[in-house]
Amino acid sequence: MHIAGTVIHAPSRGELEVIDDACVSVNREGVIESVTQGEAPTDALTLAPGTFLLPGLIDCHVHAPQWPQMGTAYDLPLNEWLQQCTFPMEAKYSDLDFAAASYSSLIDTLLENGTTTATYYGSIHVAATQLLADIAKEKGQRAYIGKVAMDNPDQCPDFYRDASTTAAIDGTRQLVEYIRSLGTDRVQPVITPRFIPSCTDDALAEFGRMASEYDCHVQTHCSESDWQHHYVLERHGLKDTQSLDRFGLLTDKTVLAHGVLIDDEDMTTIRSSHSGIAHCPLSNLYFSNAVFPARRALDRQLKVGLGTDIAGGASASVLDNAAMAINMSRALEEGVDATAAQVSRGVDDTRIDFRDAFWMATAGGAEVLGLNAGTFAPGNVFDAIVLDTTVAASDLRVWGDDSAEDVLQKAIYGANQNNIATVWVQGEKVKG
Amino acid sequence: MHIAGTVIHAPSRGELEVIDDACVSVNREGVIESVTQGEAPTDALTLAPGTFLLPGLIDCHVHAPQWPQMGTAYDLPLNEWLQQCTFPMEAKYSDLDFAAASYSSLIDTLLENGTTTATYYGSIHVAATQLLADIAKEKGQRAYIGKVAMDNPDQCPDFYRDASTTAAIDGTRQLVEYIRSLGTDRVQPVITPRFIPSCTDDALAEFGRMASEYDCHVQTHCSESDWQHHYVLERHGLKDTQSLDRFGLLTDKTVLAHGVLIDDEDMTTIRSSHSGIAHCPLSNLYFSNAVFPARRALDRQLKVGLGTDIAGGASASVLDNAAMAINMSRALEEGVDATAAQVSRGVDDTRIDFRDAFWMATAGGAEVLGLNAGTFAPGNVFDAIVLDTTVAASDLRVWGDDSAEDVLQKAIYGANQNNIATVWVQGEKVKG
Repeated sequence: MHIAGTVIHAPSRGELEVIDDACVSVNREGVIESVTQGEAPTDALTLAPGTFLLPGLIDCHVHAPQWPQMGTAYDLPLNEWLQQCTFPMEAKYSDLDFAAASYSSLIDTLLENGTTTATYYGSIHVAATQLLADIAKEKGQRAYIGKVAMDNPDQCPDFYRDASTTAAIDGTRQLVEYIRSLGTDRVQPVITPRFIPSCTDDALAEFGRMASEYDCHVQTHCSESDWQHHYVLERHGLKDTQSLDRFGLLTDKTVLAHGVLIDDEDMTTIRSSHSGIAHCPLSNLYFSNAVFPARRALDRQLKVGLGTDIAGGASASVLDNAAMAINMSRALEEGVDATAAQVSRGVDDTRIDFRDAFWMATAGGAEVLGLNAGTFAPGNVFDAIVLDTTVAASDLRVWGDDSAEDVLQKAIYGANQNNIATVWVQGEKVKG
Repeated sequence: MHIAGTVIHAPSRGELEVIDDACVSVNREGVIESVTQGEAPTDALTLAPGTFLLPGLIDCHVHAPQWPQMGTAYDLPLNEWLQQCTFPMEAKYSDLDFAAASYSSLIDTLLENGTTTATYYGSIHVAATQLLADIAKEKGQRAYIGKVAMDNPDQCPDFYRDASTTAAIDGTRQLVEYIRSLGTDRVQPVITPRFIPSCTDDALAEFGRMASEYDCHVQTHCSESDWQHHYVLERHGLKDTQSLDRFGLLTDKTVLAHGVLIDDEDMTTIRSSHSGIAHCPLSNLYFSNAVFPARRALDRQLKVGLGTDIAGGASASVLDNAAMAINMSRALEEGVDATAAQVSRGVDDTRIDFRDAFWMATAGGAEVLGLNAGTFAPGNVFDAIVLDTTVAASDLRVWGDDSAEDVLQKAIYGANQNNIATVWVQGEKVKG
């Protein structure tokens, strides 16, 4: 397969590459063989004027069972939100019919938005999480999926808790083996201790061993909010990164959601373990009590991708979160309190721009997941989208003298799912 | 005309009213005659399941000529952005063909998004601004329109400045009289000194007299950014509100854009003059160096509506700005700098919720403009939209046990223009 047109991607952080008259050639395995410029083969699919070939968007943090509640209940602090709204919602996934309807709707919506890869927390239910994997496979989305583990009776309600530590461990093992039996590389298992408060030390220790045994991805929340951060300090006398590291849960396949409260020492720990961060700017507004220092993390060469954190974040779109990552970095740099003097209001040199944000949405997310994707480099899988700027039902309007960089910036701020004309995962068309 | 279905509106700040089985009856002049509950007349238009009747959205601050650049060039501080990007763009509106294409596209897009009323800055050009009024009239949008005045050679470039103070004054007068000759109440003139830096004192004084002479709306920017705020302090030894008041420019028909840096004294001045504020949260992220204290302004019973501030804000949607108003109030309350102690990080009691935000997007905006609209009260004009939650091409998903309040909250965060099925202005259908 050959696709000819204008390519926009971010081969390295902070840099865009625009290739006019490009031809991307993809082999039968869905892997990019070459990217050339100039005349394309006669059988190439040629993109229409006003459309652009971009890498697929990568969502590094989604709570799949929270999909029905997205956009509601943002008045509560994290722990109360979990106990009063979110755990009751997740508990519903013991019902497989409900799970099927919700997960199909979710994956359809993410694909419509150009999310070629998503990293999912499931519920505590093995069966529903297996179903999530089945649906992802059937719909062709690249998916990293874990059964959430939460076995700590102090922090998890009776109606929504793993029956025991053993159940949490066995269920996780069962899910890993189920997904590995699906016969596709596109769906991968993830060991998923919800966060330290939800899990007993016994479970955390076993998950660390399991991560090594299976050489498997890990995901958890790290220093998301003041409450959570201080809970861990109190229980373990350690910061999240230190505690996770002690349990063997900081690996080069670990995705740490949020990290809003990490300090320089945490960054060093994360960098030396080669773990990655899922930056979830929309969610952080409501549940994190501060702004994730994205620029500092990127400058220290941490692996950082973006997460919608559905339903902590109120958007299913990675592009919306890219815009919000820029927005919140500006709020961090400028500060928020007009009654403070301007010089002391914000934190200098913390802003990122649309190039950084787009990099996190694509190549950065791929780096977090250890995936050969996110750019159009030969050898990468062909996970890609066509951005169509000519759609009527959209606020995105491109004018004659807009450059390709302008187009991309406008798309980050203004594209909706109608502007995503085509979506491929590993060369297979899943939209359009 | 009778419309039957579920109505959601905000009759007073912070309160939603949901009326199931409502029937809104509208007379031939497009004015609401009654809102009843129960059986509707047989000729009523009955809303389909999953759709809701809401007041039309009101945008209190739009720079019409900046439409082509929306979504680009957010790297510069306000004054550089004006000089390098925005003034060159606005200067293009000497070309009436360009103006016609841009203004048609803008008004179409705002109507698609359910914006029944918009308050526009034009360019300095009388002819292009007359054209903007013509297009608004033709397309049926309720519009408040001003020719921007900027006659101060110290602050305005040679290529984009009123030819003289007299030209700024005469052009404004010409536009007011042109719009009043259009024979429609739906398009109203606005005296529009860009902001104090752009105008000479002679012009400002004359605009104050003109506001009284014509009993006409006024719009200008007020304490938008540190640079602008301090410029006025230096030039006049006064804060913006004091200086505007001295020139007779704070009236009950004045719309003050932004007001990010206003203090309690300013709020008292604004309240006693019965002026209103256009809160533009998306724009403020990039150009205002802080967050507008919306809760404080609302608590002091100031009139506050929302503005997209195209192109300072990167969205054409009032609902997006409602969501961002909530978001930024959370950033103000929580603070942004994770290295600060939580207790001193933000400003207590500054958050607003979706009820406040929806009120600003509808009734609050109407109050700012002195318009009988924004709720379904008898006597108000029927400016309304149908929110359709059943649309496929949208991220908005409603589930069985969502309440009408949940639906509204989800729509604020997730509706796109596809969810706005029908739009009426004064009883006339302009979309759907």
